[in-house]
Amino acid sequence: MTKLYIIKVGGNVMDDDAALEKFLIDFSSLKEPKILVHGGGKMSTALASQLGVSQKLVNGRRITDSETLKIITMVYAGLLNKRIVATLQSKSVNAIGLTGADANTIRASKRINHEIDFGFVGDINPGGINIEQIIPLLNRNLVPVFCAVTHDGQGQLFNTNADTIASALAIALTKKYAVQLHYCFEKKGVLQNTEDEHSVIPVITRSRYADLLASEIISRGMIPKLDNAFDAISKGVEAIYIQHSADLLQADAGTKLVATE
Amino acid sequence: MTKLYIIKVGGNVMDDDAALEKFLIDFSSLKEPKILVHGGGKMSTALASQLGVSQKLVNGRRITDSETLKIITMVYAGLLNKRIVATLQSKSVNAIGLTGADANTIRASKRINHEIDFGFVGDINPGGINIEQIIPLLNRNLVPVFCAVTHDGQGQLFNTNADTIASALAIALTKKYAVQLHYCFEKKGVLQNTEDEHSVIPVITRSRYADLLASEIISRGMIPKLDNAFDAISKGVEAIYIQHSADLLQADAGTKLVATE
Repeated sequence: MTKLYIIKVGGNVMDDDAALEKFLIDFSSLKEPKILVHGGGKMSTALASQLGVSQKLVNGRRITDSETLKIITMVYAGLLNKRIVATLQSKSVNAIGLTGADANTIRASKRINHEIDFGFVGDINPGGINIEQIIPLLNRNLVPVFCAVTHDGQGQLFNTNADTIASALAIALTKKYAVQLHYCFEKKGVLQNTEDEHSVIPVITRSRYADLLASEIISRGMIPKLDNAFDAISKGVEAIYIQHSADLLQADAGTKLVATE
Repeated sequence: MTKLYIIKVGGNVMDDDAALEKFLIDFSSLKEPKILVHGGGKMSTALASQLGVSQKLVNGRRITDSETLKIITMVYAGLLNKRIVATLQSKSVNAIGLTGADANTIRASKRINHEIDFGFVGDINPGGINIEQIIPLLNRNLVPVFCAVTHDGQGQLFNTNADTIASALAIALTKKYAVQLHYCFEKKGVLQNTEDEHSVIPVITRSRYADLLASEIISRGMIPKLDNAFDAISKGVEAIYIQHSADLLQADAGTKLVATE
Protein backbone atom coordinates (compact mmCIF):
# COMPACT_ATOMS: atom_id res chain seq x y z
CA MET A 1 0.00 0.00 0.00
CA THR A 2 1.05 3.57 -0.62
CA LYS A 3 2.38 5.34 2.42
CA LEU A 4 0.43 8.34 3.74
CA TYR A 5 1.63 10.77 6.38
CA ILE A 6 -0.94 12.40 8.61
CA ILE A 7 0.72 15.11 10.66
CA LYS A 8 -0.97 17.04 13.42
CA VAL A 9 0.73 20.25 14.53
CA GLY A 10 -0.50 22.22 17.48
CA GLY A 11 0.29 23.54 20.92
CA ASN A 12 2.53 26.57 21.25
CA VAL A 13 3.96 25.97 17.76
CA MET A 14 0.88 27.74 16.36
CA ASP A 15 1.88 30.91 18.21
CA ASP A 16 5.58 30.79 17.32
CA ASP A 17 6.21 32.02 13.76
CA ALA A 18 9.78 30.69 13.60
CA ALA A 19 8.86 27.24 14.93
CA LEU A 20 5.89 27.01 12.54
CA GLU A 21 8.05 28.06 9.58
CA LYS A 22 10.71 25.43 10.42
CA PHE A 23 8.00 22.79 10.80
CA LEU A 24 6.37 23.69 7.45
CA ILE A 25 9.75 23.50 5.68
CA ASP A 26 10.25 19.99 7.07
CA PHE A 27 6.66 19.00 6.25
CA SER A 28 7.18 20.24 2.68
CA SER A 29 10.16 17.95 2.23
CA LEU A 30 8.12 14.76 2.84
CA LYS A 31 7.79 13.19 -0.59
CA GLU A 32 4.88 10.86 0.11
CA PRO A 33 1.17 11.81 0.04
CA LYS A 34 0.40 13.77 3.18
CA ILE A 35 -2.29 15.53 5.16
CA LEU A 36 -1.78 18.28 7.72
CA VAL A 37 -4.12 18.89 10.66
CA HIS A 38 -3.52 21.99 12.73
CA GLY A 39 -4.64 23.20 16.11
CA GLY A 40 -5.50 26.72 17.12
CA GLY A 41 -2.95 27.87 19.65
CA LYS A 42 -3.69 30.87 21.82
CA MET A 43 -4.77 33.29 19.09
CA SER A 44 -8.48 32.57 19.43
CA THR A 45 -8.32 33.14 23.19
CA ALA A 46 -6.48 36.41 22.59
CA LEU A 47 -9.03 37.52 20.00
CA ALA A 48 -11.94 36.59 22.31
CA SER A 49 -10.37 38.68 25.03
CA GLN A 50 -9.88 41.64 22.66
CA LEU A 51 -13.53 41.40 21.63
CA GLY A 52 -14.72 41.09 25.19
CA VAL A 53 -16.10 37.56 24.64
CA SER A 54 -15.60 35.84 27.95
CA GLN A 55 -14.38 32.24 28.03
CA LYS A 56 -17.00 30.10 29.68
CA LEU A 57 -15.68 27.20 31.70
CA VAL A 58 -17.80 24.51 33.33
CA ASN A 59 -15.93 22.09 35.61
CA GLY A 60 -12.72 23.32 33.99
CA ARG A 61 -13.95 22.48 30.47
CA ARG A 62 -14.24 25.23 27.89
CA ILE A 63 -17.69 25.83 26.44
CA THR A 64 -18.04 26.83 22.79
CA ASP A 65 -20.92 29.30 22.73
CA SER A 66 -22.01 30.92 19.47
CA GLU A 67 -19.68 33.92 19.82
CA THR A 68 -16.74 31.63 20.58
CA LEU A 69 -17.62 29.47 17.55
CA LYS A 70 -17.47 32.59 15.35
CA ILE A 71 -14.04 33.43 16.71
CA ILE A 72 -12.82 29.87 16.19
CA THR A 73 -14.12 29.88 12.62
CA MET A 74 -12.35 33.18 11.95
CA VAL A 75 -9.04 32.19 13.52
CA TYR A 76 -8.80 28.47 12.70
CA ALA A 77 -10.48 28.34 9.26
CA GLY A 78 -9.51 31.86 8.23
CA LEU A 79 -6.29 33.32 9.56
CA LEU A 80 -4.31 30.23 10.58
CA ASN A 81 -5.48 27.85 7.87
CA LYS A 82 -4.90 30.30 5.02
CA ARG A 83 -1.55 31.43 6.39
CA ILE A 84 -0.41 27.80 6.47
CA VAL A 85 -1.80 27.10 2.99
CA ALA A 86 -0.11 30.18 1.48
CA THR A 87 3.18 29.28 3.18
CA LEU A 88 3.04 25.69 1.91
CA GLN A 89 2.25 26.96 -1.60
CA SER A 90 5.47 29.02 -1.44
CA LYS A 91 7.32 25.75 -0.73
CA SER A 92 5.88 23.95 -3.77
CA VAL A 93 3.27 22.03 -1.76
CA ASN A 94 -0.11 22.24 -3.45
CA ALA A 95 -2.03 22.70 -0.20
CA ILE A 96 -5.81 23.02 0.00
CA GLY A 97 -7.31 24.26 3.26
CA LEU A 98 -10.42 22.50 4.52
CA THR A 99 -12.92 22.46 7.32
CA GLY A 100 -15.08 19.36 7.62
CA ALA A 101 -17.84 21.31 5.84
CA ASP A 102 -15.73 21.76 2.71
CA ALA A 103 -16.58 18.99 0.26
CA ASN A 104 -18.45 17.44 3.21
CA THR A 105 -15.18 15.87 4.32
CA ILE A 106 -15.95 15.47 8.06
CA ARG A 107 -19.39 15.13 9.61
CA ALA A 108 -19.93 15.51 13.31
CA SER A 109 -22.76 15.75 15.85
CA LYS A 110 -23.21 18.04 18.79
CA ARG A 111 -21.63 16.48 21.86
CA ILE A 112 -24.27 15.07 24.16
CA ASN A 113 -23.39 15.28 27.82
CA HIS A 114 -26.06 15.25 30.46
CA GLU A 115 -24.03 17.21 32.97
CA ILE A 116 -22.41 19.85 30.79
CA ASP A 117 -23.66 21.51 27.62
CA PHE A 118 -20.42 22.04 25.73
CA GLY A 119 -22.16 24.25 23.18
CA PHE A 120 -20.97 23.95 19.60
CA VAL A 121 -18.53 21.12 20.17
CA GLY A 122 -18.88 18.33 17.63
CA ASP A 123 -17.87 14.70 17.91
CA ILE A 124 -17.06 13.03 14.60
CA ASN A 125 -19.84 10.69 13.44
CA PRO A 126 -19.16 6.98 12.93
CA GLY A 127 -18.27 6.88 9.23
CA GLY A 128 -18.05 10.69 9.32
CA ILE A 129 -14.72 10.84 7.49
CA ASN A 130 -15.59 11.08 3.81
CA ILE A 131 -12.67 9.31 2.18
CA GLU A 132 -14.47 9.38 -1.21
CA GLN A 133 -13.82 13.15 -1.21
CA ILE A 134 -10.36 13.09 0.36
CA ILE A 135 -8.70 10.37 -1.78
CA PRO A 136 -9.30 12.16 -5.13
CA LEU A 137 -7.54 15.23 -3.71
CA LEU A 138 -4.54 13.12 -2.71
CA ASN A 139 -4.60 11.42 -6.12
CA ARG A 140 -4.18 14.85 -7.73
CA ASN A 141 -1.14 15.58 -5.52
CA LEU A 142 -3.08 18.05 -3.42
CA VAL A 143 -2.22 18.24 0.27
CA PRO A 144 -5.31 18.70 2.45
CA VAL A 145 -4.79 21.03 5.42
CA PHE A 146 -7.56 20.54 7.99
CA CYS A 147 -8.40 22.91 10.81
CA ALA A 148 -10.41 21.94 13.89
CA VAL A 149 -13.83 22.82 12.44
CA THR A 150 -16.43 20.28 11.29
CA HIS A 151 -20.15 20.40 10.40
CA ASP A 152 -23.33 18.40 10.85
CA GLY A 153 -24.63 18.59 7.27
CA GLN A 154 -27.56 20.69 8.51
CA GLY A 155 -25.74 24.00 8.32
CA GLN A 156 -24.11 23.95 11.74
CA LEU A 157 -20.35 24.27 12.15
CA PHE A 158 -18.63 22.74 15.19
CA ASN A 159 -15.40 23.05 17.11
CA THR A 160 -13.82 19.57 17.03
CA ASN A 161 -10.58 18.55 18.73
CA ALA A 162 -7.73 18.54 16.19
CA ASP A 163 -6.03 15.49 17.72
CA THR A 164 -9.26 13.55 17.23
CA ILE A 165 -9.58 14.77 13.64
CA ALA A 166 -6.04 13.54 12.95
CA SER A 167 -6.66 10.08 14.43
CA ALA A 168 -10.09 9.74 12.75
CA LEU A 169 -8.54 10.64 9.36
CA ALA A 170 -5.72 8.18 10.01
CA ILE A 171 -8.10 5.34 10.87
CA ALA A 172 -10.43 5.97 7.91
CA LEU A 173 -7.58 6.19 5.43
CA THR A 174 -6.06 2.84 6.46
CA LYS A 175 -8.52 1.40 3.92
CA LYS A 176 -6.35 2.75 1.13
CA TYR A 177 -2.97 3.70 2.61
CA ALA A 178 -0.29 2.56 5.03
CA VAL A 179 -0.80 5.46 7.43
CA GLN A 180 1.90 6.96 9.66
CA LEU A 181 0.53 9.47 12.18
CA HIS A 182 2.63 12.16 13.88
CA TYR A 183 1.53 14.47 16.68
CA CYS A 184 3.92 17.42 16.66
CA PHE A 185 4.05 20.04 19.39
CA GLU A 186 6.50 21.94 21.60
CA LYS A 187 7.62 19.00 23.76
CA LYS A 188 10.11 16.33 22.79
CA GLY A 189 7.64 13.52 23.36
CA VAL A 190 5.81 11.90 26.25
CA LEU A 191 7.87 12.73 29.31
CA GLN A 192 8.57 10.49 32.28
CA ASN A 193 8.93 13.67 34.33
CA THR A 194 7.09 16.73 33.01
CA GLU A 195 9.75 18.94 34.62
CA ASP A 196 12.53 17.28 32.63
CA GLU A 197 12.52 17.84 28.84
CA HIS A 198 15.09 15.05 28.46
CA SER A 199 12.98 12.35 30.12
CA VAL A 200 11.30 11.33 26.86
CA ILE A 201 9.86 7.81 26.94
CA PRO A 202 11.03 6.40 23.57
CA VAL A 203 8.45 3.62 23.21
CA ILE A 204 5.07 3.08 24.84
CA THR A 205 3.25 -0.19 24.42
CA ARG A 206 -0.39 -0.53 25.34
CA SER A 207 0.43 -2.30 28.62
CA ARG A 208 3.08 0.29 29.48
CA TYR A 209 0.45 2.94 28.82
CA ALA A 210 -1.88 1.32 31.35
CA ASP A 211 0.97 1.32 33.91
CA LEU A 212 1.82 4.95 33.22
CA LEU A 213 -1.82 5.93 33.63
CA ALA A 214 -2.14 3.97 36.86
CA SER A 215 0.95 5.60 38.32
CA GLU A 216 -0.28 9.06 37.16
CA ILE A 217 2.93 9.74 35.26
CA ILE A 218 1.10 10.86 32.10
CA SER A 219 0.19 14.54 32.26
CA ARG A 220 -3.52 15.31 32.05
CA GLY A 221 -3.29 17.15 28.73
CA MET A 222 -1.53 14.19 27.13
CA ILE A 223 -4.20 11.58 27.96
CA PRO A 224 -6.70 12.41 25.15
CA LYS A 225 -3.81 12.43 22.65
CA LEU A 226 -2.66 8.99 23.81
CA ASP A 227 -6.19 7.58 23.99
CA ASN A 228 -6.75 8.75 20.41
CA ALA A 229 -3.44 7.30 19.37
CA PHE A 230 -3.94 3.83 20.86
CA ASP A 231 -7.43 3.74 19.36
CA ALA A 232 -5.86 4.48 15.97
CA ILE A 233 -3.25 1.76 16.40
CA SER A 234 -5.88 -0.82 17.28
CA LYS A 235 -7.70 0.17 14.08
CA GLY A 236 -4.81 -0.35 11.71
CA VAL A 237 -2.65 2.80 11.73
CA GLU A 238 0.89 1.54 11.21
CA ALA A 239 2.99 3.86 13.33
CA ILE A 240 2.37 6.81 15.63
CA TYR A 241 4.89 9.33 16.93
CA ILE A 242 4.46 12.06 19.52
CA GLN A 243 7.31 14.48 19.04
CA HIS A 244 8.69 17.99 18.89
CA SER A 245 7.63 19.95 15.80
CA ALA A 246 11.31 20.46 14.98
CA ASP A 247 11.96 16.70 14.97
CA LEU A 248 9.58 15.60 12.20
CA LEU A 249 12.42 14.46 9.95
CA GLN A 250 14.47 12.83 12.75
CA ALA A 251 14.04 9.07 12.51
CA ASP A 252 12.45 7.73 15.68
CA ALA A 253 12.65 11.06 17.55
CA GLY A 254 10.07 11.48 20.27
CA THR A 255 7.78 8.80 21.63
CA LYS A 256 6.73 5.93 19.40
CA LEU A 257 3.51 4.14 20.27
CA VAL A 258 3.31 0.47 19.45
CA ALA A 259 0.54 -2.10 19.64
CA THR A 260 2.58 -4.91 21.21
CA GLU A 261 0.94 -5.93 24.45
CA MET B 1 -20.39 23.11 -24.49
CA THR B 2 -21.63 22.46 -20.96
CA LYS B 3 -23.22 25.44 -19.28
CA LEU B 4 -21.52 26.89 -16.20
CA TYR B 5 -23.01 29.48 -13.87
CA ILE B 6 -20.65 31.86 -12.12
CA ILE B 7 -22.57 33.83 -9.52
CA LYS B 8 -21.16 36.71 -7.54
CA VAL B 9 -23.09 37.74 -4.43
CA GLY B 10 -22.15 40.79 -2.45
CA GLY B 11 -23.19 44.16 -1.20
CA ASN B 12 -25.61 44.37 1.71
CA VAL B 13 -26.80 40.80 1.05
CA MET B 14 -23.76 39.61 3.02
CA ASP B 15 -25.02 41.43 6.11
CA ASP B 16 -28.66 40.33 5.80
CA ASP B 17 -29.16 36.76 7.03
CA ALA B 18 -32.64 36.37 5.50
CA ALA B 19 -31.60 37.73 2.09
CA LEU B 20 -28.50 35.52 2.05
CA GLU B 21 -30.54 32.44 3.00
CA LYS B 22 -33.09 33.10 0.23
CA PHE B 23 -30.27 33.62 -2.25
CA LEU B 24 -28.52 30.38 -1.23
CA ILE B 25 -31.77 28.42 -1.60
CA ASP B 26 -32.15 29.76 -5.15
CA PHE B 27 -28.48 29.14 -5.92
CA SER B 28 -28.87 25.55 -4.69
CA SER B 29 -31.68 24.91 -7.13
CA LEU B 30 -29.50 25.61 -10.20
CA LYS B 31 -28.89 22.18 -11.72
CA GLU B 32 -25.90 23.05 -13.89
CA PRO B 33 -22.27 23.18 -12.74
CA LYS B 34 -21.78 26.38 -10.77
CA ILE B 35 -19.30 28.52 -8.89
CA LEU B 36 -20.10 31.07 -6.19
CA VAL B 37 -17.96 34.13 -5.49
CA HIS B 38 -18.85 36.17 -2.43
CA GLY B 39 -17.99 39.64 -1.21
CA GLY B 40 -17.36 40.70 2.35
CA GLY B 41 -20.09 43.10 3.32
CA LYS B 42 -19.66 45.33 6.32
CA MET B 43 -18.59 42.70 8.82
CA SER B 44 -14.87 43.23 8.32
CA THR B 45 -15.27 46.98 8.84
CA ALA B 46 -17.25 46.31 12.00
CA LEU B 47 -14.62 43.87 13.29
CA ALA B 48 -11.81 46.33 12.50
CA SER B 49 -13.64 48.97 14.47
CA GLN B 50 -14.16 46.59 17.42
CA LEU B 51 -10.45 45.76 17.39
CA GLY B 52 -9.44 49.40 17.11
CA VAL B 53 -7.85 48.90 13.68
CA SER B 54 -8.41 52.18 11.89
CA GLN B 55 -9.44 52.14 8.23
CA LYS B 56 -6.80 53.91 6.22
CA LEU B 57 -8.07 55.84 3.22
CA VAL B 58 -5.90 57.58 0.63
CA ASN B 59 -7.75 59.72 -1.91
CA GLY B 60 -10.92 57.94 -0.82
CA ARG B 61 -9.46 54.50 -1.56
CA ARG B 62 -9.20 51.96 1.20
CA ILE B 63 -5.70 50.71 2.02
CA THR B 64 -5.21 47.10 3.08
CA ASP B 65 -2.47 47.20 5.70
CA SER B 66 -1.28 44.02 7.42
CA GLU B 67 -3.80 44.26 10.27
CA THR B 68 -6.65 44.81 7.81
CA LEU B 69 -5.49 41.84 5.75
CA LYS B 70 -5.67 39.66 8.87
CA ILE B 71 -9.22 40.83 9.52
CA ILE B 72 -10.23 40.22 5.90
CA THR B 73 -8.72 36.73 6.01
CA MET B 74 -10.63 35.98 9.21
CA VAL B 75 -13.97 37.35 8.03
CA TYR B 76 -13.95 36.49 4.31
CA ALA B 77 -12.07 33.16 4.30
CA GLY B 78 -13.19 32.11 7.79
CA LEU B 79 -16.54 33.27 9.05
CA LEU B 80 -18.41 34.14 5.84
CA ASN B 81 -16.96 31.48 3.56
CA LYS B 82 -17.52 28.62 6.01
CA ARG B 83 -21.00 29.81 6.95
CA ILE B 84 -21.93 29.81 3.25
CA VAL B 85 -20.31 26.41 2.66
CA ALA B 86 -22.08 24.83 5.66
CA THR B 87 -25.41 26.33 4.57
CA LEU B 88 -24.99 25.05 1.01
CA GLN B 89 -24.09 21.60 2.36
CA SER B 90 -27.43 21.60 4.22
CA LYS B 91 -29.12 22.17 0.84
CA SER B 92 -27.42 19.21 -0.84
CA VAL B 93 -24.83 21.34 -2.63
CA ASN B 94 -21.36 19.85 -2.21
CA ALA B 95 -19.66 23.20 -1.68
CA ILE B 96 -15.92 23.62 -1.15
CA GLY B 97 -14.68 26.97 0.12
CA LEU B 98 -11.55 28.37 -1.46
CA THR B 99 -9.20 31.29 -1.40
CA GLY B 100 -6.90 31.72 -4.37
CA ALA B 101 -4.15 30.11 -2.27
CA ASP B 102 -6.11 26.86 -1.90
CA ALA B 103 -4.97 24.43 -4.59
CA ASN B 104 -3.18 27.48 -6.05
CA THR B 105 -6.43 28.40 -7.82
CA ILE B 106 -5.84 32.17 -8.22
CA ARG B 107 -2.48 33.90 -8.37
CA ALA B 108 -2.17 37.64 -8.02
CA SER B 109 0.49 40.31 -7.65
CA LYS B 110 0.64 43.31 -5.37
CA ARG B 111 -1.00 46.29 -7.05
CA ILE B 112 1.60 48.71 -8.31
CA ASN B 113 0.50 52.33 -8.19
CA HIS B 114 3.02 55.12 -8.11
CA GLU B 115 0.75 57.52 -6.29
CA ILE B 116 -0.90 55.27 -3.72
CA ASP B 117 0.42 52.18 -1.98
CA PHE B 118 -2.72 50.11 -1.60
CA GLY B 119 -0.96 47.68 0.72
CA PHE B 120 -1.95 44.04 0.40
CA VAL B 121 -4.27 44.44 -2.57
CA GLY B 122 -3.62 41.92 -5.32
CA ASP B 123 -4.45 42.10 -9.00
CA ILE B 124 -4.96 38.74 -10.66
CA ASN B 125 -2.01 37.72 -12.84
CA PRO B 126 -2.47 37.15 -16.57
CA GLY B 127 -3.13 33.41 -16.68
CA GLY B 128 -3.56 33.52 -12.90
CA ILE B 129 -6.79 31.49 -12.90
CA ASN B 130 -5.70 27.87 -12.58
CA ILE B 131 -8.45 26.05 -14.48
CA GLU B 132 -6.47 22.80 -14.27
CA GLN B 133 -7.33 22.78 -10.56
CA ILE B 134 -10.86 24.15 -10.84
CA ILE B 135 -12.24 21.91 -13.61
CA PRO B 136 -11.55 18.61 -11.76
CA LEU B 137 -13.55 19.94 -8.80
CA LEU B 138 -16.49 20.77 -11.10
CA ASN B 139 -16.15 17.35 -12.75
CA ARG B 140 -16.66 15.75 -9.34
CA ASN B 141 -19.85 17.79 -8.78
CA LEU B 142 -18.18 20.01 -6.23
CA VAL B 143 -19.25 23.65 -6.11
CA PRO B 144 -16.32 26.00 -5.52
CA VAL B 145 -17.13 28.95 -3.25
CA PHE B 146 -14.49 31.65 -3.61
CA CYS B 147 -13.93 34.55 -1.25
CA ALA B 148 -12.05 37.73 -2.13
CA VAL B 149 -8.62 36.48 -1.05
CA THR B 150 -5.80 35.46 -3.42
CA HIS B 151 -2.06 34.79 -3.09
CA ASP B 152 1.21 35.39 -4.91
CA GLY B 153 2.69 31.90 -4.62
CA GLN B 154 5.44 33.33 -2.38
CA GLY B 155 3.44 33.03 0.83
CA GLN B 156 1.62 36.38 0.66
CA LEU B 157 -2.17 36.58 0.76
CA PHE B 158 -3.98 39.48 -0.89
CA ASN B 159 -7.31 41.22 -0.78
CA THR B 160 -8.69 41.04 -4.34
CA ASN B 161 -11.96 42.53 -5.57
CA ALA B 162 -14.65 39.84 -5.70
CA ASP B 163 -16.27 41.25 -8.86
CA THR B 164 -12.91 40.93 -10.61
CA ILE B 165 -12.46 37.38 -9.33
CA ALA B 166 -15.89 36.49 -10.76
CA SER B 167 -15.16 37.96 -14.19
CA ALA B 168 -11.64 36.48 -14.32
CA LEU B 169 -13.03 33.03 -13.48
CA ALA B 170 -15.73 33.48 -16.10
CA ILE B 171 -13.25 34.45 -18.80
CA ALA B 172 -10.79 31.65 -18.01
CA LEU B 173 -13.53 29.01 -17.92
CA THR B 174 -14.91 29.92 -21.36
CA LYS B 175 -12.23 27.51 -22.65
CA LYS B 176 -14.30 24.62 -21.37
CA TYR B 177 -17.83 25.92 -20.64
CA ALA B 178 -20.57 28.18 -21.96
CA VAL B 179 -20.37 30.63 -19.06
CA GLN B 180 -23.24 32.71 -17.72
CA LEU B 181 -22.16 35.32 -15.17
CA HIS B 182 -24.49 36.91 -12.61
CA TYR B 183 -23.69 39.80 -10.28
CA CYS B 184 -26.24 39.67 -7.46
CA PHE B 185 -26.66 42.39 -4.87
CA GLU B 186 -29.34 44.49 -3.13
CA LYS B 187 -30.41 46.55 -6.17
CA LYS B 188 -32.69 45.43 -8.96
CA GLY B 189 -30.07 46.12 -11.63
CA VAL B 190 -28.32 49.09 -13.18
CA LEU B 191 -30.60 52.05 -12.48
CA GLN B 192 -31.33 54.96 -14.80
CA ASN B 193 -31.99 56.98 -11.65
CA THR B 194 -30.23 55.80 -8.49
CA GLU B 195 -33.10 57.28 -6.45
CA ASP B 196 -35.67 55.12 -8.24
CA GLU B 197 -35.50 51.36 -7.64
CA HIS B 198 -37.90 50.81 -10.57
CA SER B 199 -35.73 52.55 -13.17
CA VAL B 200 -33.80 49.40 -14.07
CA ILE B 201 -32.18 49.51 -17.50
CA PRO B 202 -33.08 46.10 -18.93
CA VAL B 203 -30.33 45.85 -21.55
CA ILE B 204 -27.01 47.66 -21.91
CA THR B 205 -24.99 47.30 -25.09
CA ARG B 206 -21.40 48.43 -25.23
CA SER B 207 -22.30 51.65 -27.08
CA ARG B 208 -25.14 52.38 -24.66
CA TYR B 209 -22.63 51.91 -21.84
CA ALA B 210 -20.36 54.55 -23.38
CA ASP B 211 -23.34 56.94 -23.56
CA LEU B 212 -24.35 56.21 -19.96
CA LEU B 213 -20.80 56.83 -18.77
CA ALA B 214 -20.54 60.07 -20.74
CA SER B 215 -23.79 61.36 -19.29
CA GLU B 216 -22.71 60.29 -15.79
CA ILE B 217 -25.82 58.23 -15.26
CA ILE B 218 -23.90 55.20 -14.02
CA SER B 219 -23.18 55.42 -10.29
CA ARG B 220 -19.54 55.44 -9.33
CA GLY B 221 -19.69 52.14 -7.47
CA MET B 222 -21.18 50.40 -10.50
CA ILE B 223 -18.42 51.35 -12.95
CA PRO B 224 -15.81 48.71 -11.96
CA LYS B 225 -18.56 46.05 -12.08
CA LEU B 226 -19.59 47.11 -15.59
CA ASP B 227 -16.00 47.47 -16.80
CA ASN B 228 -15.29 43.95 -15.57
CA ALA B 229 -18.47 42.71 -17.19
CA PHE B 230 -17.86 44.18 -20.64
CA ASP B 231 -14.29 42.89 -20.53
CA ALA B 232 -15.71 39.42 -19.82
CA ILE B 233 -18.19 39.70 -22.70
CA SER B 234 -15.47 40.70 -25.14
CA LYS B 235 -13.54 37.61 -24.02
CA GLY B 236 -16.27 35.09 -24.67
CA VAL B 237 -18.60 35.01 -21.64
CA GLU B 238 -22.03 34.27 -23.11
CA ALA B 239 -24.36 36.30 -20.92
CA ILE B 240 -24.03 38.63 -17.96
CA TYR B 241 -26.75 39.81 -15.59
CA ILE B 242 -26.62 42.45 -12.87
CA GLN B 243 -29.57 41.82 -10.60
CA HIS B 244 -31.14 41.62 -7.18
CA SER B 245 -30.03 38.64 -5.12
CA ALA B 246 -33.69 37.60 -4.81
CA ASP B 247 -34.11 37.51 -8.62
CA LEU B 248 -31.52 34.88 -9.54
CA LEU B 249 -34.17 32.47 -10.83
CA GLN B 250 -36.28 35.14 -12.59
CA ALA B 251 -35.63 34.90 -16.32
CA ASP B 252 -34.10 38.14 -17.60
CA ALA B 253 -34.62 40.00 -14.30
CA GLY B 254 -32.23 42.89 -13.78
CA THR B 255 -29.88 44.36 -16.33
CA LYS B 256 -28.54 42.17 -19.11
CA LEU B 257 -25.27 43.18 -20.71
CA VAL B 258 -24.82 42.34 -24.37
CA ALA B 259 -21.94 42.68 -26.77
CA THR B 260 -23.92 44.11 -29.71
CA GLU B 261 -22.44 47.48 -30.67
